[in-house]
Amino acid sequence: MAKLHVRNLAISLDGYVAGPNQSADNPLGEGGTGLHEWVFATQTGRTWFGNDGGETGVDDDFVKAGEVGIGATIMGRNMFGPIRGAWADEEWKGWWGDNPPYHHDTFVMTHHPRPSLPMAGGTTFHFVNDTPEAVLKQAIEAADGKDVRLGGGSSVVRQFLQAGLVDELHLAVVPILLGGGERLYDDLGTLPGYRVSSVVRSPAITHVQFSKA
Amino acid sequence: MAKLHVRNLAISLDGYVAGPNQSADNPLGEGGTGLHEWVFATQTGRTWFGNDGGETGVDDDFVKAGEVGIGATIMGRNMFGPIRGAWADEEWKGWWGDNPPYHHDTFVMTHHPRPSLPMAGGTTFHFVNDTPEAVLKQAIEAADGKDVRLGGGSSVVRQFLQAGLVDELHLAVVPILLGGGERLYDDLGTLPGYRVSSVVRSPAITHVQFSKA
Repeated sequence: MAKLHVRNLAISLDGYVAGPNQSADNPLGEGGTGLHEWVFATQTGRTWFGNDGGETGVDDDFVKAGEVGIGATIMGRNMFGPIRGAWADEEWKGWWGDNPPYHHDTFVMTHHPRPSLPMAGGTTFHFVNDTPEAVLKQAIEAADGKDVRLGGGSSVVRQFLQAGLVDELHLAVVPILLGGGERLYDDLGTLPGYRVSSVVRSPAITHVQFSKA
Repeated sequence: MAKLHVRNLAISLDGYVAGPNQSADNPLGEGGTGLHEWVFATQTGRTWFGNDGGETGVDDDFVKAGEVGIGATIMGRNMFGPIRGAWADEEWKGWWGDNPPYHHDTFVMTHHPRPSLPMAGGTTFHFVNDTPEAVLKQAIEAADGKDVRLGGGSSVVRQFLQAGLVDELHLAVVPILLGGGERLYDDLGTLPGYRVSSVVRSPAITHVQFSKA
């Protein structure tokens, strides 16, 4: 039975997964890059940009494990791009250049569908206007026996959590304050149906994992 | 120069220092006791209730250091008791019984002053309707060369932080969700004027300290 994983979701002490005033020039919002510095300090994170070096250890283990066993990805439209509302054209192909780091079917949830977009390296973006349940079903089929990973942003993660569809939620709690932006915890209550299954600390951050109770 | 310290302020992952629906029977709100279990697991926390045993280590060190060098305490009215609005009488003498654990002048901020209340063990509660600046001034005088500790709740801590009066803020981040209650981070922005000066992790929690930048 395929599982749905949220992995390495970086969140500030005040509960934001992106800072205030997100824009095309500043997709993570003000201060938002501070959420991800721990990733780019790891050996695995550095290889993404063709760099050597970097830290091994707890954080690197989590980053390295992020894509292991994953056969499809689901993300929100704001994680795909900065354009809101109807697509003016189909020029925007994501933040990641010609060869996005997914290498499998990737489902972008949007109220404005457009044709599927095959990219180099095996990533195909599918634009779906459907319920979390229906999107997950498609992603599980595309994953062909592997698990599915759910990216951000906060509103998509919340929808899947509220529907009880996430099997494993891994938060990387970063000791910074963003003061505003995309807050994960609104309307999640105490996350009924989930329990904290693991807390692992590195020098930089605290990894908290929630599993279905 | 006397400093103002917030120490061992337990806060949930979702940013609450007390759970929802606080009442006289449930002063910490629903789930709020989960914020403090780490304290009562320490050797120092257990001695408060006349118990032996308990853990030593990082958490115990923080709990033990909580009152060191402190000569006066400031707290909000809700930390003193569950009564809101005008005092019906002067029967309520705090949550702590006849011998409160302060043993020095303790300033309770309230819009409804009442006569000072001397207790056994050296604690005297003073009820003050004044600005954070003015209350701090009185507390520093009372502390007589020692530092001042600021207790909760969240609204009092926020007021002092917003006024830049807190010198050291120590949060004990507990990996639980409360889903509502007293949220610390509202209207604090990124806490301008402060920086994260230390992050120390125990098996149970993450201690994050902010100092003036």
